[in-house]
Amino acid sequence: MSLPQSMKALRLHHFHGIKSLQLEERPLPKLERDEILIKVAASPINPSDQLFCDGLYKIPVSLPFTPGFEGAGKVVAAGSSYMARRLVGKWVASATQRGDGFWAEYVKVKAVEAMPFNPDVLTPEQASMSFVNPLSAMALIEPLLQGRYKAMVQTAAASQLGRMIARLAARYNVNVIHCVHRKELIPILTDLGAKHILVTSDPDFVSKLRDLAASLQATYAIDAVGGLLTGQLAEALPNHSTISVYGALAGAAVEVDPGAFIFKDQCINGFWLGTALAKKSPLSQFLFVWRAKANLTGDLTSTISRTVSLTELPALAASGLGPASEGKIILKP
Amino acid sequence: MSLPQSMKALRLHHFHGIKSLQLEERPLPKLERDEILIKVAASPINPSDQLFCDGLYKIPVSLPFTPGFEGAGKVVAAGSSYMARRLVGKWVASATQRGDGFWAEYVKVKAVEAMPFNPDVLTPEQASMSFVNPLSAMALIEPLLQGRYKAMVQTAAASQLGRMIARLAARYNVNVIHCVHRKELIPILTDLGAKHILVTSDPDFVSKLRDLAASLQATYAIDAVGGLLTGQLAEALPNHSTISVYGALAGAAVEVDPGAFIFKDQCINGFWLGTALAKKSPLSQFLFVWRAKANLTGDLTSTISRTVSLTELPALAASGLGPASEGKIILKP
Repeated sequence: MSLPQSMKALRLHHFHGIKSLQLEERPLPKLERDEILIKVAASPINPSDQLFCDGLYKIPVSLPFTPGFEGAGKVVAAGSSYMARRLVGKWVASATQRGDGFWAEYVKVKAVEAMPFNPDVLTPEQASMSFVNPLSAMALIEPLLQGRYKAMVQTAAASQLGRMIARLAARYNVNVIHCVHRKELIPILTDLGAKHILVTSDPDFVSKLRDLAASLQATYAIDAVGGLLTGQLAEALPNHSTISVYGALAGAAVEVDPGAFIFKDQCINGFWLGTALAKKSPLSQFLFVWRAKANLTGDLTSTISRTVSLTELPALAASGLGPASEGKIILKP
Repeated sequence: MSLPQSMKALRLHHFHGIKSLQLEERPLPKLERDEILIKVAASPINPSDQLFCDGLYKIPVSLPFTPGFEGAGKVVAAGSSYMARRLVGKWVASATQRGDGFWAEYVKVKAVEAMPFNPDVLTPEQASMSFVNPLSAMALIEPLLQGRYKAMVQTAAASQLGRMIARLAARYNVNVIHCVHRKELIPILTDLGAKHILVTSDPDFVSKLRDLAASLQATYAIDAVGGLLTGQLAEALPNHSTISVYGALAGAAVEVDPGAFIFKDQCINGFWLGTALAKKSPLSQFLFVWRAKANLTGDLTSTISRTVSLTELPALAASGLGPASEGKIILKP
């Protein structure tokens, strides 16, 4: 297979956001024996990519750097190991955090971290979203499915990840209170079988959530928003509740009345997929990813709002990427 | 023993703070068979009393109400039970939360919740502070003494409770990083044997705390302040730390960067003595209080800054009760 000497890549030079990315000509990555080279077909723009480009991601990387935590494409070269060589010519999805990412024409990943897929069953666009959202959704709803809580609350429920949670909740018949920020988003969730939906902009939101959470015994919440909303969750949920913050859509500090901690015994912690997976044993990690893969064309599907090229992405980010409820933007180099 | 028909009591009619308390003539409490009547000799003004009078205490009470969660005095009457009658004429310290409190000439408590003391060993003023601070200090340092953490951080370290923590830390030779809000308070803590003291108003506070917490492996903090300081603790402490909020001296919402939860896996929960004791078995509760009592004239002593009468307290509160580091104000009806 003949490969070019160089490739186009979006490079982050300062943590000034996706809009600051520069399209540059870069040498093709050099492969170690256990690595493969993927010609990138698709990579989603996830909120975690935005956080990273804004400098809010607390992972040490040296700039400049190519973002794009997950994606899919065809394997066009491999290192000398059998594990790597057997993947050449195959379609794979993968994720990477330690080295340059998927927002380039080519990316290298470890062969053991690549998941082959059949492009006739799963499109490369869907396959490119195999990890961040599906695994997060499964891990976030896991405490409820394990019976550790009677019911849970989620914010940003109309996001792609929120919809996965809603489909899983309907399938497993568990109680989730879905919170959306405007009432126009309610039908999206009712269509997925959601029974309990509240609107955070409703002036009575806190008292409605308090009543509903009390009656369903919802003592666990997952929060993608932060800011004042986290404090409202702490205020509304029953005593001794746990709130896991997994996103920062509000772009503001989490604000909570100290009384929620002192007198209500609320606990606020965080969820991040990297940490959550690291706490699992290798076998349960494998089974976890395997169950996710089996469900990628079902409950764990994402809606795609549009595709964008390497050239177009920074300008689109400068004018605003649009609300998460409209669907994922997919980069196609 | 001849008792008056009525007594003077400070009454809270609205949650408008200690300054809004009204001195009123009230009938003496009627005793059940397991209750005793205490002629109040001393009762401290604790931050928890202030929170309660400001309406920030999430315990349902019907107003008007007499505050004062703890105090000491002589038992002047008792119900018919043996447990109650045997205490008549004795000096006792006690605490109460469900009924009217100690800021009155007389208060009734359950006989089983009264702790007799010898006034020649422990003054009624010291005895009146036997519960809230000593038990909180012991419970807050307990995870460190149990070896669940290598080191801990405390804020408001020059408060009376902070000094108890400092004395216990010196006695048990455990590492505590003491944070005070101005450098003039440092000598108070060095005199108690404190080794690690930081000043929160220092512009380099966060980076100094980060370095010190990393070197001592301090992954547990207790915070009496709230507001922005809690967020600074979350930022400075190593990943996977726990911060227990037990006070609200800043009088502001706890503000934390969502990244502290998501990427640093920090957990913020609350500490409240009522909840902490309820989680212990009756036997360990008993032993806990017993250990505290044995130490009341030692590590668990409080400094008294001044005494005040029922008449004087509301006016004093209106002009400001002064910083916690100066010592406790003791009400003497």
